[in-house]
Amino acid sequence: MPDSNKFNLNDTIAILTRTPVALNALLRGLPEVWTHDNEGEKTWSVFDVVGHLIFGERTDWITRAQIILQHGEERPFDPFDRFAQFKESQGKSLEQLLDEFAQLRKQNVTALRAMNLQPKDLKRRGTHPELGPVTLEQLLATWAAHDLTHLHQISRVMAHQYRDAVGPWTEYLGVMQCGGHSGPKKTKAA
Amino acid sequence: MPDSNKFNLNDTIAILTRTPVALNALLRGLPEVWTHDNEGEKTWSVFDVVGHLIFGERTDWITRAQIILQHGEERPFDPFDRFAQFKESQGKSLEQLLDEFAQLRKQNVTALRAMNLQPKDLKRRGTHPELGPVTLEQLLATWAAHDLTHLHQISRVMAHQYRDAVGPWTEYLGVMQCGGHSGPKKTKAA
Repeated sequence: MPDSNKFNLNDTIAILTRTPVALNALLRGLPEVWTHDNEGEKTWSVFDVVGHLIFGERTDWITRAQIILQHGEERPFDPFDRFAQFKESQGKSLEQLLDEFAQLRKQNVTALRAMNLQPKDLKRRGTHPELGPVTLEQLLATWAAHDLTHLHQISRVMAHQYRDAVGPWTEYLGVMQCGGHSGPKKTKAA
Repeated sequence: MPDSNKFNLNDTIAILTRTPVALNALLRGLPEVWTHDNEGEKTWSVFDVVGHLIFGERTDWITRAQIILQHGEERPFDPFDRFAQFKESQGKSLEQLLDEFAQLRKQNVTALRAMNLQPKDLKRRGTHPELGPVTLEQLLATWAAHDLTHLHQISRVMAHQYRDAVGPWTEYLGVMQCGGHSGPKKTKAA
């Protein structure tokens, strides 16, 4: 393993436990211009992103970790539905979604800790339906990085609402130039 | 004014008041891999970014708003030092910086509210040393968007630490492809 792999289970849990608290502090009670507007057709609002994070807690991370531990590479993960939140979040408020995310994340971190994973467990492999072989360690690293990619997206979607309001300053604001989610990759399942 | 300008003073204050709380929730107590590592030579760590936000509170936003209100376009703003934090933050902990940022932001939002700005005030113009004429409204919009560009940067710098740990998932994570801060623009003053 190259030195550039900085994975550490406690460092990972440090992100996983903070994300719901940080999103709550950033988003609860915000005017809807920040939470319900998006970046244009077929893009996600902050509300959509939080729904997506919830669906990940329900169906992705811990479920896949259990598949790796129980079945190894023999049983591929179920594909993740990146659009489930458009149905699942209907009729809910952002505040309800934030509560739901916080509760599910807490349960899942408890489940992760209860696995009492050892270094050899982290090297166990599973099969991603598109990416092929992946390790449990990579799955857990991705869980934390997935929080960060959506915090990155949330800050960009919010900044987009002021793209015109900032006038000439737009060229100094890196977030207005971010193409991090553009291209065909954004349509793939996580 | 085009409809695409969504500026609203209360919406702006809603961001300004939340940023220090959100950063505190996200960052306080994190292992140093997340807060003190950067993206490579001449890039900023999360610690550097928080120091930069502090320096903005001290010298940029409210100071420039006062210059616009008192002198209009006649007196250009002083250039902003984007590298001041490398000296100013020396010897401090991230927790100290978070406290300092929260306190300064609170004072500055109080000062902003005390200005009791009316629509005609928001259209008043000042002179940016590089960008030329700007309005008070654009300055205030940029204050909020500047918070968001650095939240965007912080999430990217943090995700970068797991660039190798996530293995093949890197292609699904938009944050790993973000070039939002690259190019010559990043060297300019805000």
